[in-house]
Amino acid sequence: MKLTIAIVLVTLTLFCRPASTEVCPSLLYVLGNLIAGTPSSYEATLEPFSPDEDMKEATSQLKTLIDTLSPKAKDSMLELMDMELQPDVLG
Amino acid sequence: MKLTIAIVLVTLTLFCRPASTEVCPSLLYVLGNLIAGTPSSYEATLEPFSPDEDMKEATSQLKTLIDTLSPKAKDSMLELMDMELQPDVLG
Repeated sequence: MKLTIAIVLVTLTLFCRPASTEVCPSLLYVLGNLIAGTPSSYEATLEPFSPDEDMKEATSQLKTLIDTLSPKAKDSMLELMDMELQPDVLG
Repeated sequence: MKLTIAIVLVTLTLFCRPASTEVCPSLLYVLGNLIAGTPSSYEATLEPFSPDEDMKEATSQLKTLIDTLSPKAKDSMLELMDMELQPDVLG
């Protein structure tokens, strides 16, 4: 799974960079860590946004839920997210 | 919650549009429906990407998990996603 995650995260970054150097990478970095990162790495990606207590609680719950998914399901989610970022998919 | 969702989704779209007219809206539309939509509306947002069976299964599991979160938690997630899309947050 680690190789798949690495490939997908690099691909996400490459696809997003030409579109936006500011907006997309922040969101993608958060989403990548939400799906494939550890709880602490995901929490760290949120710190720059100074989430309030409700946001911290909600994202902690979300991360806990997502980590109940199988590695295969996480791989599939990352692959689909990659597809959603390719402009020509919707042709 | 509906008003908050509407405001956040409009804000997401407005913030994203200047950065990318192709990439971000697709992803944001999917994410917005994942958090705030019905299972069928979320499924409909994925159809254009022709997800395979594994992806359908994974996203169905994900949507089921997310729908166990409280409306308050979903609101907080949408607000945080909005913050992640504002380029000046990371100043």
